[in-house]
Amino acid sequence: MAPPVAPQPLSVVVLGGGTVGAQVVRMLTEGADDLAARVGARLVVTGVGVRDAGRERPGIPAGLLTDDLPALLDTDPDIVVELMGGIEPARELVLRALKGGASVVTANKALIATEGAALHAAAAEAGVDLSYEAAVAGAIPLLRPLRESLAGDRIRRVLGIVNGTTNYILTQMDATGASFDAALADAQALGYAEADPTADVDGHDAAAKAAILASLAFHTRVTLDDVAVQGIRTVSAEDVAAAREMGFDIKLLAVAELIEEPAGAGVSVRVHPTLVPRTHPLAGVRDAFNAVFVEAEAAGQVMFYGRGAGGRPTASAVLGDVVASARNRVTGSSEPGESSYAELPVLPIGSATTAYFVHLRVLDQPGVLAAVAGVFAEHGASIRSMTQKGEGEAAELLILTHPGREADLAATVEQLRRLGPVDAILGVMRVIGDGR
Amino acid sequence: MAPPVAPQPLSVVVLGGGTVGAQVVRMLTEGADDLAARVGARLVVTGVGVRDAGRERPGIPAGLLTDDLPALLDTDPDIVVELMGGIEPARELVLRALKGGASVVTANKALIATEGAALHAAAAEAGVDLSYEAAVAGAIPLLRPLRESLAGDRIRRVLGIVNGTTNYILTQMDATGASFDAALADAQALGYAEADPTADVDGHDAAAKAAILASLAFHTRVTLDDVAVQGIRTVSAEDVAAAREMGFDIKLLAVAELIEEPAGAGVSVRVHPTLVPRTHPLAGVRDAFNAVFVEAEAAGQVMFYGRGAGGRPTASAVLGDVVASARNRVTGSSEPGESSYAELPVLPIGSATTAYFVHLRVLDQPGVLAAVAGVFAEHGASIRSMTQKGEGEAAELLILTHPGREADLAATVEQLRRLGPVDAILGVMRVIGDGR
Repeated sequence: MAPPVAPQPLSVVVLGGGTVGAQVVRMLTEGADDLAARVGARLVVTGVGVRDAGRERPGIPAGLLTDDLPALLDTDPDIVVELMGGIEPARELVLRALKGGASVVTANKALIATEGAALHAAAAEAGVDLSYEAAVAGAIPLLRPLRESLAGDRIRRVLGIVNGTTNYILTQMDATGASFDAALADAQALGYAEADPTADVDGHDAAAKAAILASLAFHTRVTLDDVAVQGIRTVSAEDVAAAREMGFDIKLLAVAELIEEPAGAGVSVRVHPTLVPRTHPLAGVRDAFNAVFVEAEAAGQVMFYGRGAGGRPTASAVLGDVVASARNRVTGSSEPGESSYAELPVLPIGSATTAYFVHLRVLDQPGVLAAVAGVFAEHGASIRSMTQKGEGEAAELLILTHPGREADLAATVEQLRRLGPVDAILGVMRVIGDGR
Repeated sequence: MAPPVAPQPLSVVVLGGGTVGAQVVRMLTEGADDLAARVGARLVVTGVGVRDAGRERPGIPAGLLTDDLPALLDTDPDIVVELMGGIEPARELVLRALKGGASVVTANKALIATEGAALHAAAAEAGVDLSYEAAVAGAIPLLRPLRESLAGDRIRRVLGIVNGTTNYILTQMDATGASFDAALADAQALGYAEADPTADVDGHDAAAKAAILASLAFHTRVTLDDVAVQGIRTVSAEDVAAAREMGFDIKLLAVAELIEEPAGAGVSVRVHPTLVPRTHPLAGVRDAFNAVFVEAEAAGQVMFYGRGAGGRPTASAVLGDVVASARNRVTGSSEPGESSYAELPVLPIGSATTAYFVHLRVLDQPGVLAAVAGVFAEHGASIRSMTQKGEGEAAELLILTHPGREADLAATVEQLRRLGPVDAILGVMRVIGDGR
């Protein structure tokens, strides 16, 4: 066979000149020969769009910088890497790039979680790629395996530790017995949490990633607004200690699962603190690490583990997408689009099946256990274990249920709140089983 | 844009009618509509080649069975799935399929580990795909992420628990204190080990997978013969207990690493029992599960976890490859070939850098510690900790070294063998650091 004619170099435009952008430019430049061999064409960075082109950016040649982003897109680049974050102007620029025939790689989880469907449609229309491996779980190769390697299988459930900040805080609370506030302050001092930690600790960052994971796992459009979210602010040192005693770690999980109901299948997507058995592979995921645990019909349990954030890990994921898009341009193909959307309905959280952990302070008087157990029975919620701790004013009940319908368990807790002998509900958390 | 014309169905031929073959046929048939949506064309199984076409195969329609495998390949199939195992006639049939223009999916680790280069060349020549996700770590999506998601990164090291039988045996030895023989007998009774366990416990199965992992990670041709192999037969209950006391689990690891030497870079590929710190993510991989831990320059540490064997998990991985190959046929492209082989030399095991654990029975007399320490010093091997256990005839020394050149550590052990006060070398094992 005659050797193929060496194709023209491919031009890459980067939007955003922060840490990740600079790292991407550096990896494209320093690894140019290697990448050319893997892609079959050279990749050349032709411009880096930033807000203030006059400011020096370490690692980015000054000649590449420009603040005229639309003009940069008008140079007809092959690949546009969007690393600006936020919805606008990222959305507008990505749309413009796709319509202009460029393949787009982005690390922007908020953008994909809210505008993913529209952007996918634009990419399919133009016959180009839209990829965003770096938007979920940073460096962990995850979206491509979900979409490709498990393409012949049927995914039942995805459980993810997808926010490093909250996992660091929960790991610290478990290791040191610290309160949430103390662990947060520690995380902020070490740079693991922002000065304004809302997006992380209230679960919004994880929710965007849950929406993306659910969309890919179930071939269904799930947006940020579809995700039921509970953060970790209410997790107390007492919750952590009680969980530990029962053999559990508390993790903030992004959960996306297929629910088969008599009326048809649907998808439940949620983020909440969760009791994870110590023997579950997710329990071993400590500090700022991320992991995503997938249950598929034929493959069984599969887990992906790694660093969820940081300039270099994120840049690695971006580069993987750039290489795949570049190869597709060389071969004249594109990633599979969204023609296969199954469009399952997103169900309310009440439809999910889960087990509960309920931590009560109770009056230490005869008949309390019976009264509490009666409330569970009334809602068809089955108790797996019930342990009394302390006496007198410090009497507490730790209750673990068997899996049941979320709506029934929530109703049980509501009624417990109004039950005379229950002094206070100290904690309510969902529980997953031993997945090994 | 006009909707694309629906392409012709793609024909799939399966060679091998065992558990995995039957499962693949079932998944292709039962999931036909879903798969058609994902691929963009229907996949139709046109034949299943077996040795004895007269025998009934549960799950495979009798009309599909044939024992004339070459004739089956002459039907000009789009995709050939090879699940026969062994080198011949698998090699000949796969080569014939590739030359005939079919894309080939195989789960045959021995074939790829010995004939991978020739088969890749034939695939590249014909412009078709050769894929084998199921050949390493069963259902775990691993090879595709290594090849694609980390394509823009530089892999430094791959550590894999890639044999479920040995991991089950070692987990049992750790949990129950059993000897190797007792744990093996238990594994055989439960069906986790074959009646002839040689391929598993002597490390040959893991070695084939190590060769494949190294080839992909380092873009270099590594064959089974290049892999230094040590199995787990020599791992004693005492080794396991001693490791446990020091905070380690013993795992059979497949190791593939890049070694930078003054003379240039090379690759070291080996399989051996290894002390893994309890805090390392690989330590949590128990029973028959598999995991592969990858260290890349930018991505940092990434781990893939799941079931390494079994009919359904293996079939899931095969299906993922079938879908990818089918999509490529629809779009007229093919997977990236081996044009990018870096062809690094495979170095002898002596070039590797590793830490050692040495377990000695010694004469309980003055000066023994000094004599033993002197032998390490003589070879430039640095001791991290040295603990004496027991007294008199039962006196033992547990020695952990700092990482050093494998050749120096091996020479140290050789000299210890001849040292007067050393009564016996009870165990020598390599040690990895805390990778988190």
